[in-house]
Amino acid sequence: MRGRIMRYSKLFGKTIKDTPKDAILVSHTLLYRAGFIRESTAGRYYLLPLGIRVHDKIKKITKEGMDKAGAQEVVTPILHPKYLWEETNRTSSVGFELMTIKDRNKFEFVLGGTAEEMLVDLVRKFQISYKDLPFNLYQFSSKFRDEMRTRGGLLRLREFVMKDAYSFHATEEEFKKEYQSMWEIYTRIFDRLGLKTIVVESDNGYIGGEYCHEFVVESEAGESKFFTTKDGSYAAHEEVAKFQRDQKNVGEAEKPVQEVEAVRGTTMEDGVKLHGLPLWQQIKDVLFVDEKGRFILAIIRGDYEVNEIKLMHLVKAYQLRHGTDEEIRQKINSEPGFISPVGIKEIIEKDVKLVVVADTSLRTIKNAYGGANKKHKDRLNMNIDRDYASDLEGDIALAKEGYLSLEGKPFFAKKGIEVGNIFQLGFHYSAKMHDANFVDEKGKAKPYYMGCYGIGLARTMATIVEVYHDDKGIVWPEAVAPFQVHLIHLGGVHSARLAGASAKRATSEVREIAEEVYKKLQEEGVEVLWDDRGNVSAGEKFADADLIGIPIRLVISSKTEEKIEWKERTKSESELLTPLQVLQRLSSRTED
Amino acid sequence: MRGRIMRYSKLFGKTIKDTPKDAILVSHTLLYRAGFIRESTAGRYYLLPLGIRVHDKIKKITKEGMDKAGAQEVVTPILHPKYLWEETNRTSSVGFELMTIKDRNKFEFVLGGTAEEMLVDLVRKFQISYKDLPFNLYQFSSKFRDEMRTRGGLLRLREFVMKDAYSFHATEEEFKKEYQSMWEIYTRIFDRLGLKTIVVESDNGYIGGEYCHEFVVESEAGESKFFTTKDGSYAAHEEVAKFQRDQKNVGEAEKPVQEVEAVRGTTMEDGVKLHGLPLWQQIKDVLFVDEKGRFILAIIRGDYEVNEIKLMHLVKAYQLRHGTDEEIRQKINSEPGFISPVGIKEIIEKDVKLVVVADTSLRTIKNAYGGANKKHKDRLNMNIDRDYASDLEGDIALAKEGYLSLEGKPFFAKKGIEVGNIFQLGFHYSAKMHDANFVDEKGKAKPYYMGCYGIGLARTMATIVEVYHDDKGIVWPEAVAPFQVHLIHLGGVHSARLAGASAKRATSEVREIAEEVYKKLQEEGVEVLWDDRGNVSAGEKFADADLIGIPIRLVISSKTEEKIEWKERTKSESELLTPLQVLQRLSSRTED
Repeated sequence: MRGRIMRYSKLFGKTIKDTPKDAILVSHTLLYRAGFIRESTAGRYYLLPLGIRVHDKIKKITKEGMDKAGAQEVVTPILHPKYLWEETNRTSSVGFELMTIKDRNKFEFVLGGTAEEMLVDLVRKFQISYKDLPFNLYQFSSKFRDEMRTRGGLLRLREFVMKDAYSFHATEEEFKKEYQSMWEIYTRIFDRLGLKTIVVESDNGYIGGEYCHEFVVESEAGESKFFTTKDGSYAAHEEVAKFQRDQKNVGEAEKPVQEVEAVRGTTMEDGVKLHGLPLWQQIKDVLFVDEKGRFILAIIRGDYEVNEIKLMHLVKAYQLRHGTDEEIRQKINSEPGFISPVGIKEIIEKDVKLVVVADTSLRTIKNAYGGANKKHKDRLNMNIDRDYASDLEGDIALAKEGYLSLEGKPFFAKKGIEVGNIFQLGFHYSAKMHDANFVDEKGKAKPYYMGCYGIGLARTMATIVEVYHDDKGIVWPEAVAPFQVHLIHLGGVHSARLAGASAKRATSEVREIAEEVYKKLQEEGVEVLWDDRGNVSAGEKFADADLIGIPIRLVISSKTEEKIEWKERTKSESELLTPLQVLQRLSSRTED
Repeated sequence: MRGRIMRYSKLFGKTIKDTPKDAILVSHTLLYRAGFIRESTAGRYYLLPLGIRVHDKIKKITKEGMDKAGAQEVVTPILHPKYLWEETNRTSSVGFELMTIKDRNKFEFVLGGTAEEMLVDLVRKFQISYKDLPFNLYQFSSKFRDEMRTRGGLLRLREFVMKDAYSFHATEEEFKKEYQSMWEIYTRIFDRLGLKTIVVESDNGYIGGEYCHEFVVESEAGESKFFTTKDGSYAAHEEVAKFQRDQKNVGEAEKPVQEVEAVRGTTMEDGVKLHGLPLWQQIKDVLFVDEKGRFILAIIRGDYEVNEIKLMHLVKAYQLRHGTDEEIRQKINSEPGFISPVGIKEIIEKDVKLVVVADTSLRTIKNAYGGANKKHKDRLNMNIDRDYASDLEGDIALAKEGYLSLEGKPFFAKKGIEVGNIFQLGFHYSAKMHDANFVDEKGKAKPYYMGCYGIGLARTMATIVEVYHDDKGIVWPEAVAPFQVHLIHLGGVHSARLAGASAKRATSEVREIAEEVYKKLQEEGVEVLWDDRGNVSAGEKFADADLIGIPIRLVISSKTEEKIEWKERTKSESELLTPLQVLQRLSSRTED
C-alpha cells in the first residue's frame, strides 16, 4: 500500500512562504503555499501529489453518489466533432467561449465545455426502447471554457475535470423523479465533502432547457449573487430571481399627453430634478443590439434596472450589447437620454428591425414621464396601451435586496460559490438532433426527454479550502484530506547541536521510534505523511503541518517518552496517548 | 456498493450481432459486439460502462505498480502552452502529428502526445537540490496523436489515456537504476494484467534521447516488427536492429576503375543481369530529401536495404522523402538508376547541399559496380576510400530474418503490439530548456538527467482481448474483467410458455432465488452482472455471457434445484455447487 504513505523529504511539492502575485483568494494562496497546485498558464493548473490526492477523494465520493443513484459511468472523447455542435446550433450560441481545432485532414473539432451533443450522439447509436428508459450516464472528463478572465486559483478555470451526467426519459414525469433524485444525491455528495449547499434557481447559460438549479456554498469568495427569503422557501440567482412589482399610482386618472421643453442632462436623475416627479414615474429606455444586429428597446419603470439575462431569454438572443449614441441617432432617429417608446416604430430607419420589450412594472404606474425622441423634449402623462405598446411584455427587471418574493417575503442578498448544477433540458437537444428517439410501446419513434447534472471537481476543492481554513492554513475535512495523519518526530540536528552529544543519541532514537510508528500505521492502512526531516526545527514542522491541514497531527519526541502526542487540526489542545490508543482512535474514525 | 453490481436489463450498451464495417482486428469486433466501446470519429472512442470498468482496472493496476516503485502522481493541463514546445524545437520535429489551438486571446496551445516539456516546466518552478533527487512523477491523462491513418478499434488511436512518467536524476548512474526499476515494474504490471511482454530495443521517434525499449506482446495483430535470437539474449525492433555484415570478397585485389557502356533498365536486377556479377557486389544508391531540403545520398551494399529510421538518426533529420527523377537530373546532374558516389560532389548544382552516407557494408566488398551518373553508363571496380568517400559512415541497413546478431546468433522475425515503452532522455530536454537544473553539493546549478515511461491504457485493453479470446467471445483475465461473476437464471417467458402453467410458477421462483443470490453476492462484495431478462432463451443468455467474457458464470434454473451451476469461461465443463461452496470459491479467488 505504498500509495497511502509518504515521507515529507521525498514529497514533490513542499510548502513555501511566498504567495502567488495575483492571489486574491485565500484558497489560491493556501493551495499554492501548501504545495497542492501550481499554475501552468492562466486558468490552467498542475495538480501536485498532495493536490491530486484531494482531487481523487472528491472524485471517489462523487462517483459513489452517482453509482448509488443508479447512474452508469462512460467516457467520451475530449475532441467533439464540430458537426454535432452545428446540429444543435451551439457553435453560434456559445459564441466566444468555444475553442475549435482542425486535424491534419481538416476535420474540425470542438473542445467542449459540456457534452450534451456527444451523449445524444452516443445514445442514438443504440436502438433505445421505452424498456431501456430511463437511464443516466455520467463521466469524469476534462472540460474547457475559453473565459475572458480567470480568477486566481481553482475557482474559475479554463480547463478542469467535471463530473457531467445526462439522463434520458420517456416522459417529463419520469425526468422529474430523476431531477429530484439528483437534487438529493448532490446534497448528500456535498455533505460528505463537508459542504453545506443552498439550491438556487439559476440561469442555464448556453446549456438550454427551461429551468435549472445551482448548488451554492455561501462564501464571500463566490461569484454567484443570489437572493433568499428568511425561511429559505425561495432561493434564486440574481440573474433569474422573480419578485413582486409594487403598485404605485395605479388609481390615478389618465391625463392627456403633453410634450414639453426639457433642457436637461441625459440621466434619469436629470429627469427627476427637472420635473420634480418621482423616479418610479419615469420610463427608463435602454437600447441593445443582439448578435444578429436586431435592435432591442427595453422599457421599464424608472426605479428598476434591466436584467440582461432575463431580457435575452425573452427576446431569444445569445448576446447583447448596448446601442451606441450614433446608432440611437442614425438608426433609431432618436436622441440619447431622450428615447421614448411613444411612436418609435414610425421614426426608425426602414432597414432597422426594432423589438420593444416592456417590463410588467410599467403596469404599476400611470401618467409616466420621459423623453420624446428629440433633444431637450420630454413627454408627460404617457400611459401603456393608450400611448405606447410593446412587442413583448414580461419580466426583465433585476431583483435587489429587500424586494419581495412572489410569495411576499423580503429578499436577502447572499454571495456564494457554485459547485454543482442540475438542468432540465427537456426536448432541447432531442428535438434538434436527428434520430434522438426511443421507440414507445406502440412502436412509434419519440424524442426523449433529458436532463443534465454537473460537478466541477477542482472548484469544489477550492471551495472546501475557502470554507475550511484558519490563519495558519488549511483545515481539511477528514473525507477529503490528502492524508489522515501528519506524523512528526522532533529532535533534529539543530536541537541536538544545542544539547550536546547525549541528546544526539536521543535524537536518533526518536527517529527510530517514528519510523516504527510510520510502518505500523502503514500496516494498519492509515494514510500518513511523515515529516522525516532531521534538520528542521519543531516550529517549522508545526507550521508546515498547520499549513497543509491534515486532520490529525502525531508528535513523537523525547518529551513524549513512550507516548505519542495527538492533536487534531481543528482543536488547540493536545493529548498524550499510548501507541495502542492512537491506533484505536484512528480505526474508530475511519469511515466507509 | 452499488457500483459493483449491475442488472443486465439496465446496462447501457448491450451485446449486438453485427460487426463494425471496417473491423479487421478481433479486439475491435469483440469489444464492439460485446458492448464495451463505440466509435465517435475515426480513432476516437466512447467507452461504455463495461469498457470503463476494464479501463479503470488497468489504470488501478498501473497506478499500484507506479506507487510501489515510489513514483508520485501529478496531473498537467491537457493544453500545453506552445512556447514550451518551441523551447525544445519539438514543434518542428514532431511535424504533422501535432495539433495546435488558439484561445480567444490568440494564445497558442499544443495538444500533446507526450508531456516532457510540461514536466520540466513544472519541476523548474521549484528550487530542486541534489537532496530532492531522484524523483519520478507520473500522470494519467489524455494524449493526442494526429495519425494519418487509424486502425479499427483501440490499437491505434488519435486520442487515448496514457500513464506517462518522467524521472529526474543527478547522475546517469542514478537514472540507470530507475530505468532498471521501471523495466521490472512494467514487466510486473503487464504480468498482473495477464500479458507476457518482450522488451525490445526500439526507436525513440520524436521523444529524443539515446536509447529506449518497447514492451511488446507477441501478436499477429501487432504493428511492431522485431527480431529476437533464439535464446532471447537480443530483441530489437526492425527500425533499430543491429546485425553483422558478412564479409564478401574482401581478399580480392583492387582492380582499376572502368567506365562501360550499360544499356539497361534502372533496377538493381538489371545491373546484375547486364554484368553477370552478384547483387552484393553492386552499390545501391538511394537519394532522399530531408525536411530542410538537404539531399541525402544513402549508399549501401546491393543485397541490403536502407533503413530510413537509422538514416534519419545518423543525418539528424526529422523527415525524409525520396528524391524525384527530376531532382536527380536537375539538382544532382545524375540519372535515375545510374547514380554513383564517385565524383558526385563535383557534378551537383552549386546551391545543392548533398550529404553522402555510407553503410558499413561497403567495407565488406571490393571492386564494386554500379552507375556512373550518366544514362547507360556503368562503372566497374569501385572501391571505397580509393574511388569514393562518404560524409558519414555508419549503420543504415535494414535487418532481416536470418541475419546474425552482433553476437553471431540468427534473427527470428516476430510481430507484436507495443503496450508500453521506456526512454532514456538524458540531457535532451534539460539542456534545451532554461532553468532545467538542480543545485549540487557545491551549490552549482547542473542540468538533470531524465527518463520517461509510458503505458497506453486503451491499447493495453485491446491487447488483452487479442490474447484472451476464443471463437465465442472475450475471455477476460480475472484481474481486469468488468465483473467477476455473470449470474444467469433460466426459465423465462419463453420456456414457461412451452411448459405451461406449472413451469410458470417455477420460473418466478427461479427468478426469486436468483435475486437472493444476487443480493448475497453484493453483500459479499463480489462484482456481479445479473442477466435478469425474463424473455430471453437460455442459448441467448449463454452466448451473451461467452461474448462478454466474465470469468465465472453462475446458472440457476429449475434443473439445478437447490444448487448453482459454476462454469469458468476458460473451461468447458461445469459443476453443481451449493451456494456456500460458491461463496467460498469466490472468496478464495479474490486477489489483493
